[in-house]
Amino acid sequence: VDSAPPRLAQELAGVVGAAHVLADPELTAGYETDLTGRFGGPASLVVRPGGAAEVAAVLAACVAARVPVVPQGGNSGLVGGGVPTGGEVVLSLARLDSLGPVDTAAGQLTVGAGATLGALQRHLSGSGWAFGVDHGGREVATLGGMAATNAGGANVLRHGSMRAQVAGMEAVLASSDVIRRMSGAIKDNAGLDLPGLLVGSEGTLGIITALRLRLVPALPATVTALAGVEDVRAALALLDQLRRAAPSLHAVELFHRDGLELVIRRRRLPDPLPRPFPVYVLIECAARQDPLDELAGALGGVVSEDDVVVAADTASRRALWEYREAHNEAINAEGIPHKLDVCLPLGELAPFLDELHARVREAAPVARTIVYGHLGDGNLHVNVLGPAPGDDAADEAVLRLTAEHGGSISAEHGIGVAKARWLHLSRGPGEIAVMAAIKRALDPAGVLNPGKLLPPTD
Amino acid sequence: VDSAPPRLAQELAGVVGAAHVLADPELTAGYETDLTGRFGGPASLVVRPGGAAEVAAVLAACVAARVPVVPQGGNSGLVGGGVPTGGEVVLSLARLDSLGPVDTAAGQLTVGAGATLGALQRHLSGSGWAFGVDHGGREVATLGGMAATNAGGANVLRHGSMRAQVAGMEAVLASSDVIRRMSGAIKDNAGLDLPGLLVGSEGTLGIITALRLRLVPALPATVTALAGVEDVRAALALLDQLRRAAPSLHAVELFHRDGLELVIRRRRLPDPLPRPFPVYVLIECAARQDPLDELAGALGGVVSEDDVVVAADTASRRALWEYREAHNEAINAEGIPHKLDVCLPLGELAPFLDELHARVREAAPVARTIVYGHLGDGNLHVNVLGPAPGDDAADEAVLRLTAEHGGSISAEHGIGVAKARWLHLSRGPGEIAVMAAIKRALDPAGVLNPGKLLPPTD
Repeated sequence: VDSAPPRLAQELAGVVGAAHVLADPELTAGYETDLTGRFGGPASLVVRPGGAAEVAAVLAACVAARVPVVPQGGNSGLVGGGVPTGGEVVLSLARLDSLGPVDTAAGQLTVGAGATLGALQRHLSGSGWAFGVDHGGREVATLGGMAATNAGGANVLRHGSMRAQVAGMEAVLASSDVIRRMSGAIKDNAGLDLPGLLVGSEGTLGIITALRLRLVPALPATVTALAGVEDVRAALALLDQLRRAAPSLHAVELFHRDGLELVIRRRRLPDPLPRPFPVYVLIECAARQDPLDELAGALGGVVSEDDVVVAADTASRRALWEYREAHNEAINAEGIPHKLDVCLPLGELAPFLDELHARVREAAPVARTIVYGHLGDGNLHVNVLGPAPGDDAADEAVLRLTAEHGGSISAEHGIGVAKARWLHLSRGPGEIAVMAAIKRALDPAGVLNPGKLLPPTD
Repeated sequence: VDSAPPRLAQELAGVVGAAHVLADPELTAGYETDLTGRFGGPASLVVRPGGAAEVAAVLAACVAARVPVVPQGGNSGLVGGGVPTGGEVVLSLARLDSLGPVDTAAGQLTVGAGATLGALQRHLSGSGWAFGVDHGGREVATLGGMAATNAGGANVLRHGSMRAQVAGMEAVLASSDVIRRMSGAIKDNAGLDLPGLLVGSEGTLGIITALRLRLVPALPATVTALAGVEDVRAALALLDQLRRAAPSLHAVELFHRDGLELVIRRRRLPDPLPRPFPVYVLIECAARQDPLDELAGALGGVVSEDDVVVAADTASRRALWEYREAHNEAINAEGIPHKLDVCLPLGELAPFLDELHARVREAAPVARTIVYGHLGDGNLHVNVLGPAPGDDAADEAVLRLTAEHGGSISAEHGIGVAKARWLHLSRGPGEIAVMAAIKRALDPAGVLNPGKLLPPTD
């Protein structure tokens, strides 16, 4: 597979129009590096098709020219899965940003792959319906990219990840065949679940162009609380209590004092509680009727009144969420972090954290390790500051420790290029061989996002 | 691929013990015909391994002998997916019936593939937890079989189908590699979702040996109602109202007067309502606190008090469910029905039913067509009585009509052998080609359940 020959640009311009084939380095730069700044490479071209038929034609032209293709949504990924490694055509789905009407009988709607999560949320506002997945990257991340990576976020404990929201899919295969399962039929067992296989496949098996999404009833009454606890075991005990006593539980997030201090400094915020705590738990409950009593009941006896602040109005709730959501920005301001997104079985979370800091320091003595994440899912974001972008000794130490505790080396960010060579830590050789066989079956020419998700074979 | 040579029986006895290799026709008969009586064939042997390692060794021996293997759970399928077509080895998972302790922190448990749904329900009784999928075949259907067919049932509108309950899987591939993803890590995006691909693959890609299942909090307060309405459009309007006004909605089932009369006669039951109705809707709400007021509020203004009966205690609730669950038995007592399980987009349900009876009569003038199903999912069970078991003109008419209305030709029963040659009605040629390529990639020798799910290639 080669980089783009000059004739390909002309052919692609014939498909999508010259205005949507970018070759000028100034214009392509934004498509070439991912959000971390750690991953990327020069694209030979950026193409912006306007629909599934154009995506199929672009793909056919690239297959014929033997030029690999990198599908890209909002380019908000953190593992280099949606950026070129060098010489590929970037196929941007950004123009496929349609948002259909809400089908109230089915509780579903149809969206283009390029619509952002934030646009969908505004589209649904006032409809009585909501989308089940939410995360801090909502204004950049596209729904197609979120499906391709099986995005998660803070509400997975309530509604599941993207996989659980995908009720139908339109996608273009490497063969240029367009598959469409967009009827919204809720039970569909006619053959293998190809849409399910494409969810989380990171653009290596096909290009998602549209989605039929399941909606959930909007829950207008929301309360948020921030509790300080002495350690992660106390945070887990609180989680257990919340799961039992608060059916309206919507999110349970975790951060530590070190991360909070970066946020406080960066955003010039007051300390959220009267005294500092080693560990903080952010809790949200959402329901049709005010869940305040339910939350208060669940907290009672576990957290003393002085150690928690509760917010019921939108402004105070947002203020509490800022302490959690600004972690990413506050850490990035300290340098280029190595971001390791892992998922532990809940019973292994505390033992994992007991060992983490020592193991990272062993691999990278200069490292600072800041951890936050989605406690309800056992999903930790381990941020390592200090090592150079190309030095991945600390990355490997974190992923190995995760595997030792029976966790997954990728929770919600995917594998991309960042973790491809460590896939074997979470998956056995037979399983990796089957993944590679599926890749060859669907993409025999190896045109779709090569070098991503699967370990290098050389 | 041949039928079993005599040496294979000896080899398999060496793996699982002679007591677990059955060749006596009297003993194998129960494994050779499916529940409908329409599908099946002679097995060359029935093998009952006791764990994943034995399953892998059985599979290796069969691959070496080039004898195909049919994995079988409770043999309660309705499309011939779990019975031989002639000469295969039946690999029964029935001995893998372990039920692990409830992991209360994660809300999960580990089960063997051969444990029945009913055994799981009894195991969970009193634990505060429940399993999200339920259906009338609970005492026969195994959890492994339910995962292999992505079983649905009456509570899909609340909790999703089997796919949504599978948090981890152990399975044996055709290569005899055992894949294990049983940690219970809730977010896991390390590579392609092979467990998800195996869900609904009907034993054609691998053999499920154990599952990590997601549990839901038990909802102790349940009310059931049976309402009579004038037609299916009124039933759909009632569904819409229930979805809006009753967040505790747990099941919405549909049947017609003709099916009810068979049930009343067969089970010697009283008519459930003071006067007969053309269409009946069975509604269940379940919550932590008594959902009676919520249900009454949702029914008020849509259904008059004389047209509905409400049951809150277990005995009366079961009595109402009997009218729905005895449909299968009452119809079977009239002859061998052609059972066609389809899913329509909700907006197409009434137009589909408007045409159904005429279309079936066109194809099979002697036919009686009785329809019931899961209204909340648009999932209809179309039962055609009259045509001989081998005469499938009416089957094809029903499936073609389903496809014309944008529905799926298989909702929750799967494709098996019954619908394999009609897969093209719901899936395009490119999509079927990809399914076949995946099958070849995972099972190059074609040993796993040949002739099922995929259309015949000759």
